Amino acid sequence: MTDVSLGFLADRLPSDRLSLDPTDRAEYDADWGRSGGDPDVVVWPESTDEVAAVLAACDERGVPVTPYAAGSGIEGAALATTGGVTLDTTRMDGVGPVRPDDLQMDVAPGAVGGDVEAAAADRGLVCPPFPQSAAFSTIGGMVATGASGTQTVKYGEVGDWVLGLEAVLADGTVIETGSRARKSSSGYDLTALLVGSEGTLAVVTRVTLALAPEPRARRAGRATFETLDDATAAVARVVREGVDVATLELVDPLTARMASAHADADVPPDPSVYVEIHDGTEAGADAEATRCESVLSAAGGAVSFADDPAEMERIWAARRQAVDAIKTWDPDRTPLTVGDVTVPIGSFPEMVRSVRSIGAEYGFDVPAFGHAGDGNVHYAVLVDPDDPDEVARGKEASDRIVERALALEGTSTGEHGVGLGKQSYMSDEHGAAVGAMRAVKDALDPNGTLNPETALPPAQ
Amino acid sequence: MTDVSLGFLADRLPSDRLSLDPTDRAEYDADWGRSGGDPDVVVWPESTDEVAAVLAACDERGVPVTPYAAGSGIEGAALATTGGVTLDTTRMDGVGPVRPDDLQMDVAPGAVGGDVEAAAADRGLVCPPFPQSAAFSTIGGMVATGASGTQTVKYGEVGDWVLGLEAVLADGTVIETGSRARKSSSGYDLTALLVGSEGTLAVVTRVTLALAPEPRARRAGRATFETLDDATAAVARVVREGVDVATLELVDPLTARMASAHADADVPPDPSVYVEIHDGTEAGADAEATRCESVLSAAGGAVSFADDPAEMERIWAARRQAVDAIKTWDPDRTPLTVGDVTVPIGSFPEMVRSVRSIGAEYGFDVPAFGHAGDGNVHYAVLVDPDDPDEVARGKEASDRIVERALALEGTSTGEHGVGLGKQSYMSDEHGAAVGAMRAVKDALDPNGTLNPETALPPAQ
Repeated sequence: MTDVSLGFLADRLPSDRLSLDPTDRAEYDADWGRSGGDPDVVVWPESTDEVAAVLAACDERGVPVTPYAAGSGIEGAALATTGGVTLDTTRMDGVGPVRPDDLQMDVAPGAVGGDVEAAAADRGLVCPPFPQSAAFSTIGGMVATGASGTQTVKYGEVGDWVLGLEAVLADGTVIETGSRARKSSSGYDLTALLVGSEGTLAVVTRVTLALAPEPRARRAGRATFETLDDATAAVARVVREGVDVATLELVDPLTARMASAHADADVPPDPSVYVEIHDGTEAGADAEATRCESVLSAAGGAVSFADDPAEMERIWAARRQAVDAIKTWDPDRTPLTVGDVTVPIGSFPEMVRSVRSIGAEYGFDVPAFGHAGDGNVHYAVLVDPDDPDEVARGKEASDRIVERALALEGTSTGEHGVGLGKQSYMSDEHGAAVGAMRAVKDALDPNGTLNPETALPPAQ
Repeated sequence: MTDVSLGFLADRLPSDRLSLDPTDRAEYDADWGRSGGDPDVVVWPESTDEVAAVLAACDERGVPVTPYAAGSGIEGAALATTGGVTLDTTRMDGVGPVRPDDLQMDVAPGAVGGDVEAAAADRGLVCPPFPQSAAFSTIGGMVATGASGTQTVKYGEVGDWVLGLEAVLADGTVIETGSRARKSSSGYDLTALLVGSEGTLAVVTRVTLALAPEPRARRAGRATFETLDDATAAVARVVREGVDVATLELVDPLTARMASAHADADVPPDPSVYVEIHDGTEAGADAEATRCESVLSAAGGAVSFADDPAEMERIWAARRQAVDAIKTWDPDRTPLTVGDVTVPIGSFPEMVRSVRSIGAEYGFDVPAFGHAGDGNVHYAVLVDPDDPDEVARGKEASDRIVERALALEGTSTGEHGVGLGKQSYMSDEHGAAVGAMRAVKDALDPNGTLNPETALPPAQ
């Protein structure tokens, strides 16, 4: 624990920008999935200059600084576990200007995804790769996490839509990365290096996001299957055939039951694949939907496509509530983790089987769902938090699932990030490359000021 | 110049892996655009272990190592200007295995793009973002350069298709970056950091490339315009409207004349836009081509679309030969540079106007062409290499063009890389971020062993 006196920060910021109040600080003890944050001070900078002033002063004094925004992360990447300063970016929430002719816009890190979507929509534009949490999660958080979403199967990850960043290094130096051009081979790709670095290398203060015109035609459909194996094999087939899907999601029977109970809806309890098509023309959307339907049917699916918006919305509603449904399913049990391992698409069926069988082996009902088209499996191990034995078995089952994903040459986290929750897998996943990551961290943040206990395993 | 004795390398490699012969060494003095390489030794390692052995031995002794492959770069990024070792990767040219169900394949760095395309095609797969040089340029070179190509407007850059790398750091440590999953938020994105780093951070020894099924339907078309301004405005309009083009290329009248002369073809001398559509269905391709045609027509274009392969090939042939045509246009003049500035798409018309007007101001006929849909402008300043005054004026004109691109918030190099040719613009383009790049370089290559005089401006 660092002993922080308020003095040096109070000299550098207006008085409404910081607080030592225990009530204020307590709001930063947890995110959606983890807890353990214990900042000595919270600051709410309102400009890049203020961020730079905080960082320069803290870096000089060896005071850790941990950026925080919506707190909607799952792996604890924004928790000030070593005390020091929590730097809340949510007052830096400017959106725009939109540059429609360049298909891009600038966004401040604390802006929530929903506000960005609204500003873009005013010009007929979209930023497609946002996660489902975009209604409340922030752009800065998405960039820090290396987030992605349901439409990543067609449009890529959030990071693929970041043209450039303004960011403040640990010592207070303000840098700009990238450019406003759609491509560049000029210099090291610091933009990509900062995306997914979880505030451990710099604090992002401006994001230049690429945008695209709204898709002109959409179709949504659902296919139900007799067995989960049939459903996952169908997913792999759709990808292998190159069907141009905008989303390709799996919902297993347990997740469906949970969603039905939560939403008081009638979600079919069969293994299901949800799919959406985006196209530039109505004729193209019809043709691609027909093609998709034939691949899903050939794989044993009972397929129905909708084309009016209300019907589309009903089809999607159940899937969208999966995480909430899991959290409220059993009043005595909480998700130990909402995991998101990701594997090569050919191994997706095997990965889903493994999640089920490892769950069964440990005596847990483990729902499996997620962005199937990316090879991404979300799963939740529900445990009674007051039963230490159950918690221990739950952790062991979670470890086994991640180990299986790594054995299938996948990753321990497709989109939720490392934070505190996935740190222990980093050496297994990356081997000697962890040393290179550590060298980069030490080069850009030699005093270990920025978010020092997340993402990478501790230095040797 | 480093004094290199062969002894320490000869102890570590079979004898056919290295040469001190001046004739061998002289083959590494230039690439397609620059000269000045002067290695003391050339090595041709045949395995990752051999690369690691060379690097470890050289790093210990302060001997520079510069990777080289096809030599088809344009900016001199592979030239051993400080002597030492040129490490030729072309004997490491393994292709595959293709993993069709995972839509990916492993490739050794010295494999040429054409061989990769052939192996993928055997399984009905493609890697769409390759540059036009792919028939002879290598995967390692593409990765090192941060290359892209005619289809980048739809499919992204080569780097976007790199799932992971095996690479050897300066001290001989072998690392693996990324994973075989299509997305990950696990750890720093070292893959993206190494892509475009021009062999200054590591020597890539294996590339895991993503693949896609071949597009099932294609259309190619051309639109001619009365003025170059009309043509560039049409390009910006097609992008702004979100027409799903797979390629969107500009050929200006001068480039058209050069191409006609070179190929003895009948390329129309009007400002022209070349376009290709890829789609999953024939109906979709027809609908999208119709949409594209209507946008181009509304912008003043005389449009013709072809749908048989032979006709498509004729439409594309002229564009494909543009670089060769420029080189052979005037026997007394050579291109001082084949530039590739890239700007936000809304500024593309202004950038093309600037290239023409700056050329006119300095008395040069400057052809302008390129991957217009990305906001990318290729241009060539043709000078008499024996006329120092003309060379000096050509350099000044080139500088002015790059400065204009930076003023338009673009980049000095969209796809050719930095090398020796663009180094002088790096500080203007990246400002304080150059310091962060230098810190990363020093962290991963503390002795400055790897390709020490390229990419970044000299350390202060």
